[in-house]
Amino acid sequence: MKAKVHVTLKNGVLDPQGKAVENALGTLGFDGVAGARIGKYIELDLTETDPAKAEAQVTEMCEKLLANTVIENYRVEVGG
Amino acid sequence: MKAKVHVTLKNGVLDPQGKAVENALGTLGFDGVAGARIGKYIELDLTETDPAKAEAQVTEMCEKLLANTVIENYRVEVGG
Repeated sequence: MKAKVHVTLKNGVLDPQGKAVENALGTLGFDGVAGARIGKYIELDLTETDPAKAEAQVTEMCEKLLANTVIENYRVEVGG
Repeated sequence: MKAKVHVTLKNGVLDPQGKAVENALGTLGFDGVAGARIGKYIELDLTETDPAKAEAQVTEMCEKLLANTVIENYRVEVGG
């Protein structure tokens, strides 16, 4: 079973990487960019076949390793 | 208008970061992880209001800056 995890910075947390991308896009002539925020996208291959258990597992992985919950939010999608 | 971009490594391209996460999850006791691949998730705030134009713009941004098309795939979603 596949799981997809999005890890994004919480609102209000400074995102220097996003700022750099925003500036670089401006330099390249893309004037219409008002903001850019960059997060992580993690695809996991799980041996678990029960969707509910898989989701619980991945949520625990996020809490323990994948996300820094002080400054980051995460979103888990299971299936496929 | 918001745009979301997923940048992922192409199949067959080695993903050391994903491998490290996979091993770390194993160390933490999550035995059911058969694979992990890590990509980028970019949220853009655009001043463009036409969805078709916005998508074309973001695709160009991906080709020029956001993705390394030799080793990475990208997926653009516009809206919201």
